[in-house]
Amino acid sequence: MKALEERIVKDGKVFPGQVLKVDCFLNHQVDVAFLNEIGREFYRLYKDSGVNKIFTIEASGIGIACITAQYFNVPVVFAKKSLGKNIASDVYSTKVRSFTHGREYDVIVSQEFLHKEDRILIIDDFLAQGCALNGLIDLINCAGAEVVGAGIVIEKAFQQGGDIIRSKGIRVESLARISSMSDDGSITFCD
Amino acid sequence: MKALEERIVKDGKVFPGQVLKVDCFLNHQVDVAFLNEIGREFYRLYKDSGVNKIFTIEASGIGIACITAQYFNVPVVFAKKSLGKNIASDVYSTKVRSFTHGREYDVIVSQEFLHKEDRILIIDDFLAQGCALNGLIDLINCAGAEVVGAGIVIEKAFQQGGDIIRSKGIRVESLARISSMSDDGSITFCD
Repeated sequence: MKALEERIVKDGKVFPGQVLKVDCFLNHQVDVAFLNEIGREFYRLYKDSGVNKIFTIEASGIGIACITAQYFNVPVVFAKKSLGKNIASDVYSTKVRSFTHGREYDVIVSQEFLHKEDRILIIDDFLAQGCALNGLIDLINCAGAEVVGAGIVIEKAFQQGGDIIRSKGIRVESLARISSMSDDGSITFCD
Repeated sequence: MKALEERIVKDGKVFPGQVLKVDCFLNHQVDVAFLNEIGREFYRLYKDSGVNKIFTIEASGIGIACITAQYFNVPVVFAKKSLGKNIASDVYSTKVRSFTHGREYDVIVSQEFLHKEDRILIIDDFLAQGCALNGLIDLINCAGAEVVGAGIVIEKAFQQGGDIIRSKGIRVESLARISSMSDDGSITFCD
Protein backbone atom coordinates (compact mmCIF):
# COMPACT_ATOMS: atom_id res chain seq x y z
CA MET A 1 0.00 0.00 0.00
CA LYS A 2 1.87 2.98 -1.37
CA ALA A 3 0.28 5.61 0.89
CA LEU A 4 1.30 3.60 3.94
CA GLU A 5 4.90 3.19 2.81
CA GLU A 6 5.08 6.94 2.22
CA ARG A 7 3.60 7.63 5.64
CA ILE A 8 6.11 5.30 7.32
CA VAL A 9 9.01 7.05 5.57
CA LYS A 10 7.61 10.48 6.46
CA ASP A 11 6.57 9.89 10.08
CA GLY A 12 8.23 6.68 11.24
CA LYS A 13 11.31 6.83 13.45
CA VAL A 14 13.97 4.15 13.45
CA PHE A 15 15.75 3.42 16.73
CA PRO A 16 18.77 1.19 17.36
CA GLY A 17 17.91 -2.50 17.51
CA GLN A 18 15.67 -2.25 14.45
CA VAL A 19 12.87 -0.63 16.38
CA LEU A 20 10.37 1.31 14.25
CA LYS A 21 8.13 3.79 16.00
CA VAL A 22 4.99 4.86 14.21
CA ASP A 23 3.25 6.16 17.28
CA CYS A 24 2.33 9.50 15.75
CA PHE A 25 -0.27 7.92 13.44
CA LEU A 26 -0.80 4.26 14.36
CA ASN A 27 -0.34 3.19 17.96
CA HIS A 28 -0.30 6.09 20.40
CA GLN A 29 -1.75 8.96 18.44
CA VAL A 30 -4.10 7.50 15.84
CA ASP A 31 -4.89 9.14 12.49
CA VAL A 32 -8.40 7.76 12.18
CA ALA A 33 -8.95 9.02 8.62
CA PHE A 34 -5.81 7.15 7.59
CA LEU A 35 -6.98 4.05 9.48
CA ASN A 36 -10.01 4.14 7.23
CA GLU A 37 -7.77 3.82 4.18
CA ILE A 38 -6.10 0.84 5.86
CA GLY A 39 -9.46 -0.72 6.71
CA ARG A 40 -10.68 -0.27 3.15
CA GLU A 41 -7.57 -2.04 1.85
CA PHE A 42 -8.07 -4.99 4.22
CA TYR A 43 -11.64 -5.18 2.95
CA ARG A 44 -10.50 -5.20 -0.67
CA LEU A 45 -8.15 -8.09 0.11
CA TYR A 46 -10.57 -10.21 2.18
CA LYS A 47 -14.05 -9.19 1.04
CA ASP A 48 -14.73 -12.51 -0.70
CA SER A 49 -13.53 -14.70 2.19
CA GLY A 50 -16.76 -14.94 4.16
CA VAL A 51 -15.33 -13.20 7.24
CA ASN A 52 -17.88 -13.08 10.07
CA LYS A 53 -15.62 -11.85 12.90
CA ILE A 54 -12.46 -9.82 13.33
CA PHE A 55 -10.04 -10.84 16.05
CA THR A 56 -7.18 -8.78 17.48
CA ILE A 57 -5.19 -8.27 20.67
CA GLU A 58 -5.16 -5.32 23.03
CA ALA A 59 -4.16 -2.59 22.91
CA SER A 60 -2.99 -1.12 19.62
CA GLY A 61 -4.84 -3.61 17.43
CA ILE A 62 -8.23 -2.51 18.71
CA GLY A 63 -8.62 0.77 16.83
CA ILE A 64 -7.47 -0.75 13.55
CA ALA A 65 -9.79 -3.72 14.02
CA CYS A 66 -12.83 -1.57 14.86
CA ILE A 67 -12.35 0.72 11.86
CA THR A 68 -11.78 -2.27 9.57
CA ALA A 69 -14.84 -4.06 10.94
CA GLN A 70 -17.06 -1.26 9.64
CA TYR A 71 -16.26 -2.32 6.08
CA PHE A 72 -17.05 -5.98 6.77
CA ASN A 73 -20.05 -5.19 8.99
CA VAL A 74 -18.92 -7.77 11.55
CA PRO A 75 -18.10 -7.60 15.28
CA VAL A 76 -14.60 -7.34 16.74
CA VAL A 77 -13.27 -9.54 19.53
CA PHE A 78 -10.05 -8.56 21.21
CA ALA A 79 -7.89 -10.95 23.21
CA LYS A 80 -6.67 -9.66 26.55
CA LYS A 81 -3.21 -9.79 28.06
CA SER A 82 -3.33 -11.21 31.53
CA LEU A 83 -0.65 -10.78 34.14
CA GLY A 84 -2.71 -12.51 36.81
CA LYS A 85 -1.86 -15.94 38.16
CA ASN A 86 -5.34 -17.36 37.81
CA ILE A 87 -6.89 -18.09 34.45
CA ALA A 88 -10.67 -18.39 34.60
CA SER A 89 -12.19 -21.65 33.41
CA ASP A 90 -14.44 -20.09 30.77
CA VAL A 91 -11.65 -18.68 28.61
CA TYR A 92 -9.25 -20.01 26.01
CA SER A 93 -5.68 -19.09 26.91
CA THR A 94 -2.22 -19.27 25.41
CA LYS A 95 1.21 -17.93 26.24
CA VAL A 96 2.86 -15.21 24.16
CA ARG A 97 6.45 -14.04 24.39
CA SER A 98 6.96 -10.28 23.99
CA PHE A 99 10.39 -9.37 22.63
CA THR A 100 9.61 -5.69 23.17
CA HIS A 101 8.93 -6.17 26.87
CA GLY A 102 11.21 -9.16 27.42
CA ARG A 103 8.67 -11.37 29.11
CA GLU A 104 5.97 -13.95 28.56
CA TYR A 105 2.34 -13.31 29.33
CA ASP A 106 -0.96 -15.12 29.11
CA VAL A 107 -3.38 -14.08 26.41
CA ILE A 108 -7.01 -14.96 26.96
CA VAL A 109 -10.35 -14.75 25.23
CA SER A 110 -13.75 -15.66 26.59
CA GLN A 111 -15.05 -18.92 25.11
CA GLU A 112 -18.34 -17.10 24.65
CA PHE A 113 -16.98 -15.06 21.76
CA LEU A 114 -15.23 -17.62 19.51
CA HIS A 115 -17.26 -20.46 18.00
CA LYS A 116 -16.38 -23.33 15.74
CA GLU A 117 -18.50 -21.98 12.87
CA ASP A 118 -16.63 -18.64 12.88
CA ARG A 119 -14.55 -17.52 9.90
CA ILE A 120 -12.07 -15.15 11.45
CA LEU A 121 -9.86 -12.40 10.09
CA ILE A 122 -7.01 -11.49 12.43
CA ILE A 123 -5.95 -7.83 12.41
CA ASP A 124 -2.83 -6.41 14.06
CA ASP A 125 -0.49 -3.46 13.74
CA PHE A 126 2.87 -5.27 13.55
CA LEU A 127 4.25 -8.64 12.54
CA ALA A 128 7.88 -9.37 13.41
CA GLN A 129 8.72 -12.60 15.26
CA GLY A 130 5.08 -13.59 14.94
CA CYS A 131 4.53 -14.40 18.62
CA ALA A 132 1.32 -12.41 19.03
CA LEU A 133 -0.09 -13.66 15.73
CA ASN A 134 0.75 -17.26 16.62
CA GLY A 135 -0.99 -16.77 19.94
CA LEU A 136 -4.15 -15.49 18.27
CA ILE A 137 -4.11 -18.44 15.86
CA ASP A 138 -3.78 -20.78 18.86
CA LEU A 139 -6.85 -19.27 20.47
CA ILE A 140 -8.86 -19.63 17.26
CA ASN A 141 -7.74 -23.25 17.00
CA CYS A 142 -8.83 -23.85 20.61
CA ALA A 143 -12.32 -22.79 19.56
CA GLY A 144 -12.23 -24.97 16.45
CA ALA A 145 -12.91 -21.89 14.30
CA GLU A 146 -11.34 -21.12 10.94
CA VAL A 147 -8.56 -18.60 10.36
CA VAL A 148 -9.44 -16.90 7.08
CA GLY A 149 -6.19 -14.95 7.20
CA ALA A 150 -4.31 -12.13 8.86
CA GLY A 151 -4.27 -8.47 7.93
CA ILE A 152 -1.12 -6.78 9.21
CA VAL A 153 -0.36 -3.10 8.86
CA ILE A 154 3.46 -3.33 9.01
CA GLU A 155 5.53 -6.48 8.61
CA LYS A 156 9.22 -6.57 9.44
CA ALA A 157 9.89 -9.01 6.61
CA PHE A 158 13.54 -9.36 7.66
CA GLN A 159 12.33 -11.18 10.75
CA GLN A 160 10.93 -14.68 10.62
CA GLY A 161 7.32 -14.43 11.81
CA GLY A 162 5.67 -13.92 8.43
CA ASP A 163 7.53 -16.78 6.76
CA ILE A 164 6.77 -19.22 9.56
CA ILE A 165 3.07 -18.43 9.59
CA ARG A 166 2.72 -18.49 5.78
CA SER A 167 4.52 -21.86 5.75
CA LYS A 168 1.62 -23.25 7.80
CA GLY A 169 -0.69 -22.39 4.90
CA ILE A 170 -2.17 -19.31 6.55
CA ARG A 171 -2.81 -16.30 4.33
CA VAL A 172 -0.99 -13.23 5.64
CA GLU A 173 -1.49 -9.88 3.92
CA SER A 174 0.77 -7.08 5.13
CA LEU A 175 0.12 -3.59 3.80
CA ALA A 176 3.76 -2.56 4.16
CA ARG A 177 6.60 -5.10 4.18
CA ILE A 178 9.93 -3.74 5.37
CA SER A 179 12.95 -5.53 3.98
CA SER A 180 15.54 -3.55 5.94
CA MET A 181 16.03 -0.66 8.33
CA SER A 182 19.32 0.94 9.19
CA ASP A 183 20.35 2.93 12.21
CA ASP A 184 20.69 6.07 10.05
CA GLY A 185 16.89 5.96 9.75
CA SER A 186 16.52 4.67 6.20
CA ILE A 187 13.79 2.12 5.50
CA THR A 188 13.57 -0.20 2.49
CA PHE A 189 10.41 -2.02 1.45
CA CYS A 190 9.99 -5.37 -0.28
CA ASP A 191 8.95 -5.11 -3.93
CA MET B 1 -29.52 7.15 25.38
CA LYS B 2 -32.49 4.82 25.30
CA ALA B 3 -30.98 2.24 22.93
CA LEU B 4 -27.97 1.90 25.22
CA GLU B 5 -30.08 1.43 28.35
CA GLU B 6 -32.06 -1.26 26.56
CA ARG B 7 -28.86 -2.96 25.43
CA ILE B 8 -27.46 -2.93 28.97
CA VAL B 9 -30.65 -4.50 30.32
CA LYS B 10 -30.68 -7.10 27.54
CA ASP B 11 -26.99 -8.07 27.43
CA GLY B 12 -25.37 -6.76 30.62
CA LYS B 13 -24.63 -9.14 33.48
CA VAL B 14 -24.58 -8.05 37.11
CA PHE B 15 -22.14 -9.78 39.44
CA PRO B 16 -21.83 -9.49 43.22
CA GLY B 17 -19.96 -6.38 44.34
CA GLN B 18 -21.89 -4.19 41.89
CA VAL B 19 -19.86 -5.37 38.94
CA LEU B 20 -21.52 -4.88 35.55
CA LYS B 21 -20.16 -6.87 32.62
CA VAL B 22 -20.99 -5.62 29.16
CA ASP B 23 -18.22 -7.51 27.43
CA CYS B 24 -20.47 -9.02 24.76
CA PHE B 25 -20.93 -5.65 23.02
CA LEU B 26 -18.57 -3.06 24.52
CA ASN B 27 -15.25 -4.19 25.93
CA HIS B 28 -14.27 -7.69 24.86
CA GLN B 29 -16.51 -8.41 21.92
CA VAL B 30 -17.34 -5.07 20.28
CA ASP B 31 -20.54 -4.39 18.33
CA VAL B 32 -19.03 -1.82 15.98
CA ALA B 33 -22.36 -0.83 14.39
CA PHE B 34 -23.66 -0.03 17.87
CA LEU B 35 -20.45 1.89 18.68
CA ASN B 36 -21.33 4.08 15.72
CA GLU B 37 -24.61 5.01 17.40
CA ILE B 38 -22.65 5.86 20.54
CA GLY B 39 -20.13 7.93 18.57
CA ARG B 40 -22.92 9.80 16.80
CA GLU B 41 -24.48 10.66 20.17
CA PHE B 42 -21.17 11.99 21.56
CA TYR B 43 -20.90 14.11 18.42
CA ARG B 44 -24.40 15.49 18.91
CA LEU B 45 -23.46 16.48 22.46
CA TYR B 46 -20.05 18.01 21.73
CA LYS B 47 -20.17 19.08 18.10
CA ASP B 48 -20.16 22.81 18.93
CA SER B 49 -17.30 22.61 21.44
CA GLY B 50 -14.37 23.03 19.07
CA VAL B 51 -12.91 19.60 19.84
CA ASN B 52 -9.63 19.03 17.98
CA LYS B 53 -8.48 15.83 19.70
CA ILE B 54 -10.01 12.83 21.45
CA PHE B 55 -8.16 11.37 24.40
CA THR B 56 -8.72 7.97 26.01
CA ILE B 57 -6.89 5.22 27.89
CA GLU B 58 -6.01 1.73 26.77
CA ALA B 59 -7.48 -0.72 26.23
CA SER B 60 -11.26 -0.67 26.06
CA GLY B 61 -11.53 3.08 25.43
CA ILE B 62 -9.65 2.84 22.14
CA GLY B 63 -12.35 1.38 19.92
CA ILE B 64 -15.01 3.77 21.21
CA ALA B 65 -12.65 6.72 20.78
CA CYS B 66 -11.67 5.77 17.21
CA ILE B 67 -15.26 5.30 16.06
CA THR B 68 -16.30 8.57 17.75
CA ALA B 69 -13.35 10.44 16.20
CA GLN B 70 -14.73 9.73 12.72
CA TYR B 71 -17.67 12.04 13.45
CA PHE B 72 -15.41 14.84 14.70
CA ASN B 73 -12.75 14.25 12.03
CA VAL B 74 -9.98 14.55 14.64
CA PRO B 75 -7.14 12.26 15.79
CA VAL B 76 -7.26 10.02 18.84
CA VAL B 77 -4.52 9.84 21.46
CA PHE B 78 -4.58 7.01 23.95
CA ALA B 79 -2.74 7.06 27.27
CA LYS B 80 -0.82 3.92 28.13
CA LYS B 81 -0.72 1.98 31.35
CA SER B 82 2.84 1.39 32.45
CA LEU B 83 3.95 -1.27 34.87
CA GLY B 84 7.61 -0.46 34.34
CA LYS B 85 9.75 1.20 36.96
CA ASN B 86 11.22 3.80 34.65
CA ILE B 87 9.17 6.63 33.20
CA ALA B 88 10.76 8.20 30.14
CA SER B 89 11.52 11.92 30.31
CA ASP B 90 9.47 12.88 27.26
CA VAL B 91 6.11 11.81 28.65
CA TYR B 92 3.53 13.23 31.01
CA SER B 93 2.67 10.73 33.73
CA THR B 94 0.24 10.32 36.58
CA LYS B 95 -0.78 7.56 38.94
CA VAL B 96 -4.17 5.87 38.72
CA ARG B 97 -5.69 3.49 41.23
CA SER B 98 -7.64 0.58 39.74
CA PHE B 99 -10.36 -0.74 42.04
CA THR B 100 -11.04 -3.59 39.60
CA HIS B 101 -7.45 -4.81 39.76
CA GLY B 102 -6.67 -3.64 43.28
CA ARG B 103 -3.48 -1.80 42.46
CA GLU B 104 -2.00 1.48 41.35
CA TYR B 105 -0.29 1.98 38.02
CA ASP B 106 1.39 4.75 36.08
CA VAL B 107 -0.46 6.20 33.13
CA ILE B 108 1.63 7.99 30.54
CA VAL B 109 1.27 9.95 27.34
CA SER B 110 4.00 11.26 25.07
CA GLN B 111 4.43 15.03 25.38
CA GLU B 112 4.52 15.07 21.59
CA PHE B 113 0.78 14.40 21.35
CA LEU B 114 -0.78 16.86 23.82
CA HIS B 115 -0.30 20.60 23.28
CA LYS B 116 -1.46 23.63 25.17
CA GLU B 117 -3.67 24.82 22.29
CA ASP B 118 -5.57 21.51 22.22
CA ARG B 119 -9.30 21.33 23.03
CA ILE B 120 -9.75 17.79 24.19
CA LEU B 121 -12.73 15.50 24.52
CA ILE B 122 -12.08 12.54 26.82
CA ILE B 123 -13.86 9.29 25.90
CA ASP B 124 -14.08 6.20 28.09
CA ASP B 125 -16.30 3.18 28.56
CA PHE B 126 -16.99 3.41 32.32
CA LEU B 127 -17.07 6.04 35.04
CA ALA B 128 -17.34 4.79 38.61
CA GLN B 129 -14.85 6.06 41.21
CA GLY B 130 -13.44 8.37 38.55
CA CYS B 131 -9.81 7.38 38.98
CA ALA B 132 -9.05 6.83 35.30
CA LEU B 133 -10.90 9.98 34.27
CA ASN B 134 -9.09 12.02 36.91
CA GLY B 135 -5.81 10.64 35.62
CA LEU B 136 -6.60 11.66 32.06
CA ILE B 137 -7.57 15.15 33.24
CA ASP B 138 -4.23 15.35 35.12
CA LEU B 139 -2.33 14.52 31.93
CA ILE B 140 -4.22 17.16 29.95
CA ASN B 141 -3.48 19.70 32.69
CA CYS B 142 0.21 18.76 32.55
CA ALA B 143 0.17 19.78 28.88
CA GLY B 144 -1.70 23.00 29.62
CA ALA B 145 -4.45 21.94 27.22
CA GLU B 146 -8.19 22.42 27.72
CA VAL B 147 -10.62 19.69 28.76
CA VAL B 148 -13.75 20.35 26.71
CA GLY B 149 -15.54 17.56 28.54
CA ALA B 150 -15.85 13.83 28.97
CA GLY B 151 -18.03 11.41 27.04
CA ILE B 152 -18.70 8.26 29.05
CA VAL B 153 -20.66 5.28 27.83
CA ILE B 154 -21.80 3.94 31.23
CA GLU B 155 -21.70 5.83 34.53
CA LYS B 156 -22.27 4.09 37.83
CA ALA B 157 -24.01 7.15 39.24
CA PHE B 158 -24.28 5.53 42.68
CA GLN B 159 -20.51 5.87 42.98
CA GLN B 160 -18.81 9.17 43.52
CA GLY B 161 -16.60 9.75 40.46
CA GLY B 162 -19.08 11.66 38.32
CA ASP B 163 -20.11 14.04 41.13
CA ILE B 164 -16.52 14.81 42.08
CA ILE B 165 -15.47 15.59 38.52
CA ARG B 166 -18.58 17.66 37.74
CA SER B 167 -17.99 19.63 40.96
CA LYS B 168 -14.68 20.78 39.45
CA GLY B 169 -16.67 22.42 36.65
CA ILE B 170 -15.88 19.76 34.07
CA ARG B 171 -18.68 18.77 31.71
CA VAL B 172 -19.38 15.04 31.92
CA GLU B 173 -21.92 13.46 29.57
CA SER B 174 -22.75 9.82 30.27
CA LEU B 175 -24.96 8.02 27.79
CA ALA B 176 -26.34 5.66 30.45
CA ARG B 177 -26.39 6.55 34.14
CA ILE B 178 -27.07 3.65 36.46
CA SER B 179 -28.67 4.61 39.77
CA SER B 180 -28.66 1.13 41.27
CA MET B 181 -27.87 -2.50 40.56
CA SER B 182 -28.93 -5.42 42.70
CA ASP B 183 -27.47 -8.88 43.00
CA ASP B 184 -30.61 -10.38 41.43
CA GLY B 185 -29.46 -8.72 38.19
CA SER B 186 -31.90 -5.80 38.02
CA ILE B 187 -30.55 -2.42 36.86
CA THR B 188 -32.18 0.97 37.42
CA PHE B 189 -31.23 4.09 35.50
CA CYS B 190 -31.30 7.74 36.59
CA ASP B 191 -34.15 9.76 35.06
